[in-house]
Amino acid sequence: MGRVTSRYRVLRLDDGVGAHRPDSLAAEEPLEIRVGGRPLTVTMRTPGDDFDLARGFLVSEGVVTSAADVTSIRYCAGATVGGANTYNVVDVLLDDAVPAPDASLERNFYTTSSCGVCGKASLDAVRTVSRWSVDADPVRLSATTIATLPDTLRAAQRVFDRTGGLHAAGLFDADGTLSCVREDVGRHNAVDKVIGWAAGQDRLPLTGMTLMVSGRASFELVQKAVMAGVPALAAVSAPSSLAVDLAREMGLTLVGFLRGTTMNVYSGEQRLGAVVPGSDRPAVRSAG
Amino acid sequence: MGRVTSRYRVLRLDDGVGAHRPDSLAAEEPLEIRVGGRPLTVTMRTPGDDFDLARGFLVSEGVVTSAADVTSIRYCAGATVGGANTYNVVDVLLDDAVPAPDASLERNFYTTSSCGVCGKASLDAVRTVSRWSVDADPVRLSATTIATLPDTLRAAQRVFDRTGGLHAAGLFDADGTLSCVREDVGRHNAVDKVIGWAAGQDRLPLTGMTLMVSGRASFELVQKAVMAGVPALAAVSAPSSLAVDLAREMGLTLVGFLRGTTMNVYSGEQRLGAVVPGSDRPAVRSAG
Repeated sequence: MGRVTSRYRVLRLDDGVGAHRPDSLAAEEPLEIRVGGRPLTVTMRTPGDDFDLARGFLVSEGVVTSAADVTSIRYCAGATVGGANTYNVVDVLLDDAVPAPDASLERNFYTTSSCGVCGKASLDAVRTVSRWSVDADPVRLSATTIATLPDTLRAAQRVFDRTGGLHAAGLFDADGTLSCVREDVGRHNAVDKVIGWAAGQDRLPLTGMTLMVSGRASFELVQKAVMAGVPALAAVSAPSSLAVDLAREMGLTLVGFLRGTTMNVYSGEQRLGAVVPGSDRPAVRSAG
Repeated sequence: MGRVTSRYRVLRLDDGVGAHRPDSLAAEEPLEIRVGGRPLTVTMRTPGDDFDLARGFLVSEGVVTSAADVTSIRYCAGATVGGANTYNVVDVLLDDAVPAPDASLERNFYTTSSCGVCGKASLDAVRTVSRWSVDADPVRLSATTIATLPDTLRAAQRVFDRTGGLHAAGLFDADGTLSCVREDVGRHNAVDKVIGWAAGQDRLPLTGMTLMVSGRASFELVQKAVMAGVPALAAVSAPSSLAVDLAREMGLTLVGFLRGTTMNVYSGEQRLGAVVPGSDRPAVRSAG
């Protein structure tokens, strides 16, 4: 739809001396997601892969898990400005067997009715809602392969080099092969687009796969990985405390500060055959 | 409260060889904001400056503009786990003259009832709700001074160097003097904390000030600047298309890719006395 980037005239200044020049910016537009005609949420996103975004959002929130759970997704014909469709409102029809989400859905993972709002309640909520056990995923990961993911992800990004303004998320198998990459101004949207793509292919749970994100790892991103049944999440930058807490609670492998050949493993290190000098672990070197 | 960072034991891997070591992570916990006892929103934030965060959120959403609009803010005594207060629920009491926000408040800036969801409607909503005209702010800014803001902001960040996981927002005057800096796992929260601090001091509108953020500039951050009456927003990284659209619509100076002595000016360049060779602008060099 040609709306992933937009061209703007900007003033480039260097040491107080300026020149006007064109610049490509990442497009940002609101998307309203409706379910059965009822508005559920509005997210600011980069247009494109909107149906995957809607489907992935519903996976992340525990509403759908299979392709058959969704009967159809379409742009609302009535969402127009000056007679033209905005392509900013999508309506998801669920299968009759799937309970409709309630309107307070966005808070389900943060609070429970039985106690005060806290991190522990947020962890409990994810465990209660998730249908998959990523803890049981027997996949073995290679640190050498994981170290290749950032370059592969960057090479597959179509828009970042032009705008510098987009987050990316990619889905990799244990050999480091990329299945799907999506970009968005919102990191959570990029992840939802990837998960929605996989759900549309009926590939959930994403056993044996690694989800790679370009920025930091928050609680919300670990939650999305768990809800999609991905056993490993890798991030270029730092995780938060609650991201690590949730990863450990659920048995997800969480890698952060993934740069060059170095990385921090915050959870699920048993999936990585790492040499730890002085420990009683088997000296299985993951390289090679 | 000692919850801004948390210590974790992690596995550091370099080329497949690992060692366990302690690592400091940015704390992330849910915060529920209530108004007059009614839950309004839940945000994942780094604990600390929670009252500023709540107050700034209400400024950003157009609910309050002065210190007197808020009668009191307190942690809810009933929000407990195992008998201990979670410090994750705050209740804001508004002055009797201030209309209470409605529960669908979070969507006010993205949609209007009269048309489909679109960027233009989002811009219109901000213009309708904002009480300040940043367009009329006569402040003159120096590119040389703006180039100093990132280093000042970084030097003032207390936690980033330890965790690498926090966004920062800072409020500067035209001379580059820092008034307030706040950090958070969420960029929007860091901005709300700064704005809430200023609102508590009855300093709105923030005439003549520049808001600096450590990451990218989204629609939401420009919206927050406008709602606080800040005439300039500077970001280390890229703005989105809708961020630039809103800045231009409202007359906000928007600077992006602020690195070393270079920057891009996307909107409001008249406030910067820049030399533009070949243009008919006065050749006022801002350096010096």
